[in-house]
Amino acid sequence: MSIATISRTHHRAPAPAPRDHLRPVPALPHAVLAPLPRTVAADLGVPTLHRTVVDYANFDHAASTPALESVQAAVDAALRTYSSVHRGNGYASKVTSAWYEQAREQVASFVGAREEDLVVFTRNTTDSLNLLARALPRRTTTFVFESEHHAALLPWDERRTVRLPVPGSVEDALVLLEEALAEHARTSDGPRLVVVTGASNVTGELWPVERFTEVARRYAARVALDAAQLAPHRRIDVGALDVDYVAFSGHKLYAPFGAGVLVGRADWLDAAAPYLRGGGATARVSEREVQWSQGSARHEAGSPNVIGAIALAAACATVEAHRDAIEAHESALAQRLQAGLAAIEGVSTWSVFGEGHDRVGVVTFTVDGVDSSLVSASLSAEHGVGVRDGKFCAHLLVDALLDGPGAPATAVRASVGLASTVEHVDRLVSAVSRLAEHGPAFDYELTDAGWEPVDDPRDLSLPRPW
Amino acid sequence: MSIATISRTHHRAPAPAPRDHLRPVPALPHAVLAPLPRTVAADLGVPTLHRTVVDYANFDHAASTPALESVQAAVDAALRTYSSVHRGNGYASKVTSAWYEQAREQVASFVGAREEDLVVFTRNTTDSLNLLARALPRRTTTFVFESEHHAALLPWDERRTVRLPVPGSVEDALVLLEEALAEHARTSDGPRLVVVTGASNVTGELWPVERFTEVARRYAARVALDAAQLAPHRRIDVGALDVDYVAFSGHKLYAPFGAGVLVGRADWLDAAAPYLRGGGATARVSEREVQWSQGSARHEAGSPNVIGAIALAAACATVEAHRDAIEAHESALAQRLQAGLAAIEGVSTWSVFGEGHDRVGVVTFTVDGVDSSLVSASLSAEHGVGVRDGKFCAHLLVDALLDGPGAPATAVRASVGLASTVEHVDRLVSAVSRLAEHGPAFDYELTDAGWEPVDDPRDLSLPRPW
Repeated sequence: MSIATISRTHHRAPAPAPRDHLRPVPALPHAVLAPLPRTVAADLGVPTLHRTVVDYANFDHAASTPALESVQAAVDAALRTYSSVHRGNGYASKVTSAWYEQAREQVASFVGAREEDLVVFTRNTTDSLNLLARALPRRTTTFVFESEHHAALLPWDERRTVRLPVPGSVEDALVLLEEALAEHARTSDGPRLVVVTGASNVTGELWPVERFTEVARRYAARVALDAAQLAPHRRIDVGALDVDYVAFSGHKLYAPFGAGVLVGRADWLDAAAPYLRGGGATARVSEREVQWSQGSARHEAGSPNVIGAIALAAACATVEAHRDAIEAHESALAQRLQAGLAAIEGVSTWSVFGEGHDRVGVVTFTVDGVDSSLVSASLSAEHGVGVRDGKFCAHLLVDALLDGPGAPATAVRASVGLASTVEHVDRLVSAVSRLAEHGPAFDYELTDAGWEPVDDPRDLSLPRPW
Repeated sequence: MSIATISRTHHRAPAPAPRDHLRPVPALPHAVLAPLPRTVAADLGVPTLHRTVVDYANFDHAASTPALESVQAAVDAALRTYSSVHRGNGYASKVTSAWYEQAREQVASFVGAREEDLVVFTRNTTDSLNLLARALPRRTTTFVFESEHHAALLPWDERRTVRLPVPGSVEDALVLLEEALAEHARTSDGPRLVVVTGASNVTGELWPVERFTEVARRYAARVALDAAQLAPHRRIDVGALDVDYVAFSGHKLYAPFGAGVLVGRADWLDAAAPYLRGGGATARVSEREVQWSQGSARHEAGSPNVIGAIALAAACATVEAHRDAIEAHESALAQRLQAGLAAIEGVSTWSVFGEGHDRVGVVTFTVDGVDSSLVSASLSAEHGVGVRDGKFCAHLLVDALLDGPGAPATAVRASVGLASTVEHVDRLVSAVSRLAEHGPAFDYELTDAGWEPVDDPRDLSLPRPW
């Protein structure tokens, strides 16, 4: 069951002719100056080919974020009394067990979960959506756009997945979904699940989730929200959005301690086979049979990552408490970044829904005539700027975006967050501008590890931390 | 396919009549006084019903251990440069990626892995063995003793698992295994996997792994070693033991940061479907097909728990460097604990292979006429001693051990480790002695949360750490 991909034009925003990236950018709103939660790596210095050490400009928040200071503090505090959860009867076990359950409540509150929703701790969004995929009732058909990143695109049983093409606009996406659901409903009354992203992993563009949910509900479909890229940047309310499941990762939310989460309706999860088979998920084991637990425990076999769950809860609490300041900070930086890059001759920024569409602080761009991997290598080695190049675990979307004549195969992604500053943005824009005009300032060679500077004077062999 | 359980006598060591638990215990060897690696919670004070605050006596190492100071330091150092691994091109990504791969090498060295073995980071032993179970070739039959804890007992496809009864002795276990393998080999040439534990989760008894491997090899069976309970306490050498796979957890090895590991032969893992479907495990995704990665990445979809892997590596390095001192420390404490408990009238200690069998520092015991859960509640509330009661995620083994006339349904497990001291052991032994003679010193009532002191004056509501 599959809809043939139809040809759709995506949005390449080439730079205007005049080099107006030096035009004055809008003044930053006052909130940017308000205290923001600090990350632990805020003052990281990195060496450059110019034999200088510069403040690390981290533009890879969309992949993974540094830890918040508040998260590290929570982890340190939790380690003081860390012990096994569940059936330990010592003081430390009791304390740790209580905190583990409070972490669940914190995460539930962070997404506005319904009273009856389960909060299952997983390792990350990929894990959360794989868990959901394994918990689907047997005849469930899943509807997913090819614009999803692999975590949301691939977990579903291929024989029962309807792949929708990368849409050309929100309206297009809604029509595609409606058509597919209607077609399915004509021939089947099996369960349906619509997977929708909150914010694109590649372009940062926001998907109007509630509009997709409206369509899904008309066909009695459930909705799973991939909030990996949304949760760090915008408020989520599963009640208001009317979604059934939401998944996100700690490591994109300033809590890189190996925990993610799946929050949502209990019925399918309670009816499903346990995600892992082992202790903690078992109510009773006899020689003849195993009685599996109900609730979250059913899918959390083995000793859980308590420290990761506490880290995630701490991040949720901090981000929630500073939501307005964070949004103002990121929005100002994102606009400055977007406007700065779009203004450079020879640089294209890419989007699904068009440049004006609301987005989180993610900009994906290409530089005419310069391999994206060389762009990122040069930004790193010459300017202490960390970006990502490639297809961002969303091959189909990047292939669709870069499908035009003369477009490169891969792109560069710059994403802002709490570790980003105005100076970082200006440094990146000015570096890309020079790159686009003159190419890299040093010589690079293509090695097995990608583009590397020739005669690199930097000592990059940081001693391992143990 | 299943072998009927035959009746086997297990070892209950009732206390000798005279109350000779106060007899002098052997002097501690000098090594106990040698510097041992410190845990972060070494000076945790806990309130008691006597309105005192006492040093927490953590006897729950077999469930989960506190973090080592060296582990916390490694985590803090790694957080300073934490960023995404894999294809990030920034300085922080390069550094973090290098450390992630060095963590793999450290773990490989810790278990003496072969050059060609894969090291796959998982969340814990349960996860590692579930991964192995999903990676078995289609016709594989698994042979597992019912004495295994659930992490090693349950992951395997029930239709292709031969369950061997809890043995009465090592010789008995070897015969059981040999018979089952021989019977299987008469009718099938499909792949065979033998699962064997390094040290029992319930009794701490060591299984002579190389003897089981010898038997397995005669029938061309592969061997998976569950080293969850062994790795923290004894040196492991997969080459010398001739095992194909080894699994263990960080959280039992002083690195409670959500990472465990599966180390072993690549062929089955490379041929298997990816454990999770998502980014990181994909080499290439097109509209028509997915090419999955080979090697460890194939089974590590989603952003990996880098901090957890670094914590695990740090723990491996520290434990390896202090192995002799750790063994001497634990062995002295374990003997003192074992001898002390066994000498108490009305207390029974339990074993599969007999009291004299070599074991890590785990003692499982029962107190005549006192519910095990009340024993653990009283030890905690009155003495600041943390133990575990129940069936320790090994229901079949505990049921088999406690199968005799008048035996209780559950037991108490006390397990020593780096956070344990001589004073802790003496406090536990003396507390159990008083319990056995007089029962608890305070009144307790059975609530939904287990036995709770009546009129508890302690404030246990520690503020959550975030």
